[in-house]
Amino acid sequence: MAEEKRRYFATPIDVKKGIIDLTHGAGGRATAQLISQVFARAFSNEILEEGHDGAFLPEIHGTPVVSCDAHVIRPLFFPGGDIGSLAVAGTVNDVAMCGAKPLYIAACFVIEEGFPIADLDRIVQSMGRTAREAGVKIVTGDTKVVEKGHGDGLYITTTGIGEVLPGIRVSGRLARPGDRVIISGSMGDHGMAIMSEREGLSFGSGIQSDSAPLNALVEEICRAAPHVHVLRDPTRGGLATTLNEIASQSSVGIMLDEASIPVHEDVAQACEFLGLDPLYVANEGKLIAIVPEEEAESCLKAMRAAPHGEESAIVGTVTAEDPGYVQMTTLMGGVRMVDWLNADQLPRIC
Amino acid sequence: MAEEKRRYFATPIDVKKGIIDLTHGAGGRATAQLISQVFARAFSNEILEEGHDGAFLPEIHGTPVVSCDAHVIRPLFFPGGDIGSLAVAGTVNDVAMCGAKPLYIAACFVIEEGFPIADLDRIVQSMGRTAREAGVKIVTGDTKVVEKGHGDGLYITTTGIGEVLPGIRVSGRLARPGDRVIISGSMGDHGMAIMSEREGLSFGSGIQSDSAPLNALVEEICRAAPHVHVLRDPTRGGLATTLNEIASQSSVGIMLDEASIPVHEDVAQACEFLGLDPLYVANEGKLIAIVPEEEAESCLKAMRAAPHGEESAIVGTVTAEDPGYVQMTTLMGGVRMVDWLNADQLPRIC
Repeated sequence: MAEEKRRYFATPIDVKKGIIDLTHGAGGRATAQLISQVFARAFSNEILEEGHDGAFLPEIHGTPVVSCDAHVIRPLFFPGGDIGSLAVAGTVNDVAMCGAKPLYIAACFVIEEGFPIADLDRIVQSMGRTAREAGVKIVTGDTKVVEKGHGDGLYITTTGIGEVLPGIRVSGRLARPGDRVIISGSMGDHGMAIMSEREGLSFGSGIQSDSAPLNALVEEICRAAPHVHVLRDPTRGGLATTLNEIASQSSVGIMLDEASIPVHEDVAQACEFLGLDPLYVANEGKLIAIVPEEEAESCLKAMRAAPHGEESAIVGTVTAEDPGYVQMTTLMGGVRMVDWLNADQLPRIC
Repeated sequence: MAEEKRRYFATPIDVKKGIIDLTHGAGGRATAQLISQVFARAFSNEILEEGHDGAFLPEIHGTPVVSCDAHVIRPLFFPGGDIGSLAVAGTVNDVAMCGAKPLYIAACFVIEEGFPIADLDRIVQSMGRTAREAGVKIVTGDTKVVEKGHGDGLYITTTGIGEVLPGIRVSGRLARPGDRVIISGSMGDHGMAIMSEREGLSFGSGIQSDSAPLNALVEEICRAAPHVHVLRDPTRGGLATTLNEIASQSSVGIMLDEASIPVHEDVAQACEFLGLDPLYVANEGKLIAIVPEEEAESCLKAMRAAPHGEESAIVGTVTAEDPGYVQMTTLMGGVRMVDWLNADQLPRIC
């Protein structure tokens, strides 16, 4: 048998100079080599190593949570991350925003013929690093290859499984008048990093995507504010769109204070240049926590001490008035509506 | 709020004549309309309807199992199914082959700009039907759209979650000498249906893909043969490749009996014409059960009475001799090796 196996896997793939061809997705020898030389090396864990088509998981204690995302971001590499770190962090965050501890990830790859294996390796390593940072295991996966001209390098789909933290119950429907709206840092970094990279804007070259796993931050929030009502990550559509969704789902109003919303100077400048409002630009490493007034200060303190929460700020209040509407006290002292995004959102930002 | 929502979702999409554009994947209004008019209608269940980014699931009782697959099959519609039925059935089967009851599915869509919404609707309806047949719920999903020329109509990734059936423990490592090898029906139907369709072979026009969810069949097997050792679906690489994997993982030999392996006449003819061996051609609605000798007859009987198991047959025996090798008593009475697939497998067959 050992000899049989040796014969079958005789020629290793060239990770440095090789390119993906259709055989790497056909489920035969080349697929097995790609798995052992690229994926298994980066994702190594005892569940994946069972080598079964499906993964057997340890018992899940809290309410199980599942979330999935297809990632088609362009470009694949950008300041502050790549499609791999984004795919893992994005799914970790979707699970965490259910008030849950993310545990496992399933990852599927659709690769375009001709893609450099070195780039795939770099992306897969980046996924492994992000998974280790978040404390999640990539337990199963699948790889398919499509002909040149039928993909765009690489698409990654990630599905995350987790368990709700003890005693926590969050939902977009649970915001209550009097609650405070806290965000975990500056708005618009991810979207403007991608746009600057894509448009080749030199003045935006210092902007980094904020892409990061936020599950440790969520655990700190749930410890400091056990009655947290809503957790949400303001990704596509940004803070404004996400708050409108919450205001609508909870039938409450939300009053923001513009002066308290952190926006990095270079992001603000790039937004101004492109005629964009940072409140509508995507974030990939920020969250919104809506917490009862009495837990807001301790929550804010815990967030500022937690990973990826240093710039946290209380930015608004939930109101009984004007249910379904988000408004903002502006820097000029007036009050304006913060509407749903009217224009269509930027494609392929995640 | 109601008015706000009405305004936001004012113009419904045209499911019959509309085409997918980039806004349908951008996470804004068009995405929401696509979800409510196409996906939610076909997948309707109480978990999906919560409308959260992640799905909260009921408690999972047995050992949790997760499996995922990216589906890039070409063509999207084929005799006996389409990419939608295939995606659901394929993932249901991967979970079931762990000796588990599939419960939930997460589905991600990467759609190429210009794709007819009517085709998407047809595929999504087909997913819903297959999910209902299998008794699984599609609980969460994501949709992204890529520019024309960066996809091939539609790619679907499905991740399945299930629970191991009480008392069942199967693994490719558990085949033991004396065990019987049972298959649930004829070999090669899926692969030859796709190839005939793709190559426009008129003589193969009667061949239907066998794509089907096999979880009910697996439950019957586990009832009739509670000590079943291995469950596997012989997809890419066919029966020959899958049995070689099992022989290798379990360090046993396998001796097949060619006369007992069912192959439909038209599949055999199409294979002969194309110079293919049906034992290496993909199946999407068949399984291999390796069971102890004393449970083989009752297992076979139960399989023949179960859905998608009517043509089940005992086709071989596990041996202590020649561990790692699969051999076959041929129709001519000789014995030949059944090797791993040497040629590379057909791309985009699933």
